[in-house]
Amino acid sequence: MSWEDNVRKVVPYTPGEQPKVKNIIKINTNENPYPPAPAVQEALRTMDVDQFRKYPDPTCDVLVTALSDFYKVDKEKIFVGVGSDDVLAMAFLTFFNSDKPVLFPDITYSFYDVWADLYRIPYRQIPLMDDFSVKIDDYFVPNGGIILANPNAPTGAQLPIDAVEEVIKNNPDVVVIVDEAYADFGGQSVLPLIDKYDNLLVVQTFSKSRSMAGMRVGYAFGCKKIIKYLLDAKFSFNSYTMNMPALELGALAVKDRAYFEKTVSMIINTRERVKKQLIELGFEFADSKTNFIFARHKEKSGKEIFDFLRANNILVRRWDAPRISDYLRISIGTDEEMDILISKLKEFLNK
Amino acid sequence: MSWEDNVRKVVPYTPGEQPKVKNIIKINTNENPYPPAPAVQEALRTMDVDQFRKYPDPTCDVLVTALSDFYKVDKEKIFVGVGSDDVLAMAFLTFFNSDKPVLFPDITYSFYDVWADLYRIPYRQIPLMDDFSVKIDDYFVPNGGIILANPNAPTGAQLPIDAVEEVIKNNPDVVVIVDEAYADFGGQSVLPLIDKYDNLLVVQTFSKSRSMAGMRVGYAFGCKKIIKYLLDAKFSFNSYTMNMPALELGALAVKDRAYFEKTVSMIINTRERVKKQLIELGFEFADSKTNFIFARHKEKSGKEIFDFLRANNILVRRWDAPRISDYLRISIGTDEEMDILISKLKEFLNK
Repeated sequence: MSWEDNVRKVVPYTPGEQPKVKNIIKINTNENPYPPAPAVQEALRTMDVDQFRKYPDPTCDVLVTALSDFYKVDKEKIFVGVGSDDVLAMAFLTFFNSDKPVLFPDITYSFYDVWADLYRIPYRQIPLMDDFSVKIDDYFVPNGGIILANPNAPTGAQLPIDAVEEVIKNNPDVVVIVDEAYADFGGQSVLPLIDKYDNLLVVQTFSKSRSMAGMRVGYAFGCKKIIKYLLDAKFSFNSYTMNMPALELGALAVKDRAYFEKTVSMIINTRERVKKQLIELGFEFADSKTNFIFARHKEKSGKEIFDFLRANNILVRRWDAPRISDYLRISIGTDEEMDILISKLKEFLNK
Repeated sequence: MSWEDNVRKVVPYTPGEQPKVKNIIKINTNENPYPPAPAVQEALRTMDVDQFRKYPDPTCDVLVTALSDFYKVDKEKIFVGVGSDDVLAMAFLTFFNSDKPVLFPDITYSFYDVWADLYRIPYRQIPLMDDFSVKIDDYFVPNGGIILANPNAPTGAQLPIDAVEEVIKNNPDVVVIVDEAYADFGGQSVLPLIDKYDNLLVVQTFSKSRSMAGMRVGYAFGCKKIIKYLLDAKFSFNSYTMNMPALELGALAVKDRAYFEKTVSMIINTRERVKKQLIELGFEFADSKTNFIFARHKEKSGKEIFDFLRANNILVRRWDAPRISDYLRISIGTDEEMDILISKLKEFLNK
């Protein structure tokens, strides 16, 4: 008998590489190439450091109010956390406590099975169709909860929201989480459905469309009852998860709607241009509504291309996993960064 | 059958009140009355907001390195998190997975039973002696883990470290967590014991002695093996728990040893003076080695005094709980704040 017998042993999630060297084109973790809203920089200059000696507001009111104003949703229907990973980790703990398996696609955000393993939650990974689309009938079976990333990651494919609604409607006895980390880049959100279905939790993040991955801010929408349950669990874990800079600067980032819309449409424009160029170079991919493209080449292996780009200081993401090992997930950077990517790909392909 | 049947229902921890009005003497949550180290303010002014678009370093290296240098402990023996609450919440999840009960005192940090309830961990609360001391023999029984706050909260009493060592030594088959949130204010740390006992986890925080409650930084020390298990669980929960300001400003706060020692000794000096004044006014308390005094009056009820102070814009903390309902936990503020407290107490007591 040893204390190690009672350790919760797990195989942790592996985040994308965060290289410490400079001069690398880092398009491997779906970060935003543009800085946060200008008010964030200004607020940092004038922030009163003396306030740091006090605990932050546990209700996160300044941030929740800003989200409430932006999305026209009651404050009691909003939850905030340390990135959408924190929100999702708390949601798994709060809602997925059945003996039946939680359902999610075989190719999706690779943290879902890690959370299920951490909490010893049974789960079943349902294969996507060959074109990476979700067959919703697969989710009309007894289960302990459902989580769908929409648009999905790393595929980038969007499931139409009427299909998502079918999944929610046909599963009234479990919580359905829709992870919309990438929904701002031209996808559609199921946010309006929170008043129609009390079993729906919609999760979004500041890490992509609001250029704040480094600040760790995520949020969720749901009916008052589902948010109350989530808050109770969160307050049983850590009263003060979000620090003062995250609350204050996060609120400022939400308030600047014009900057948000401008930078999002810049990324969409770059993405659409890069799609055409990749097709010309012989790549194929499901149509992306996100800030990345998940593509494979018709002739070259994913590993070959990945290694060539890595050697040329361009970092994309690749998984050595079934069905997707020939794919590269390429985040949308600035136009300049994508020009260098395309030119290096031409060099590799002799085009 | 409803999705609510599978919700993890809990009674959350209630943090101390965070009043939104100004002009209140807030000595209810053991915050530090002095601002963080001067370098923190300076760094805020020059922080590059563009970096916020990227994910923070998941290894938290800048902060871990600063702690390693300060405490002369290998980096592999250090864990950091979003306040010591986050560190403790992850430690409960990682290490307390036995069918036997986790042991802790009946009067201690009131989050311990909340975490146990959240994770459905069996636990047993062992009564402190009448003088609020821990009888260590009570912990030499079969159990699934032990957590001791030392100095204890809210009592402020320190258990001698040779007694803590007896508890660790006699429980080699479980993890013993020593929560040293208040150890910097004249208490003794068991940190040197991490190289002697592989079942020891020592937890500390920036919220008290480093004036950074609002930044949410906590940390733990243990042998390499225990820290590795904790990191695995943490990376299965959220890859990036600590945001860039917490990492950068936290590291600067650690580096300024002179400021740390100066402000800690100012608080100790104020505490020792206030102890004498409280005794003169008819209060009694266990000797405190923390930044608070847990005191009751020989004649007046705790509720009477609490209500009088509250009406006079002085906020202290009181629990309506067995054995301690007549006690007030008074955080040590500035000398000026404590002078006002003492003068109001004199007014109430007609002295």
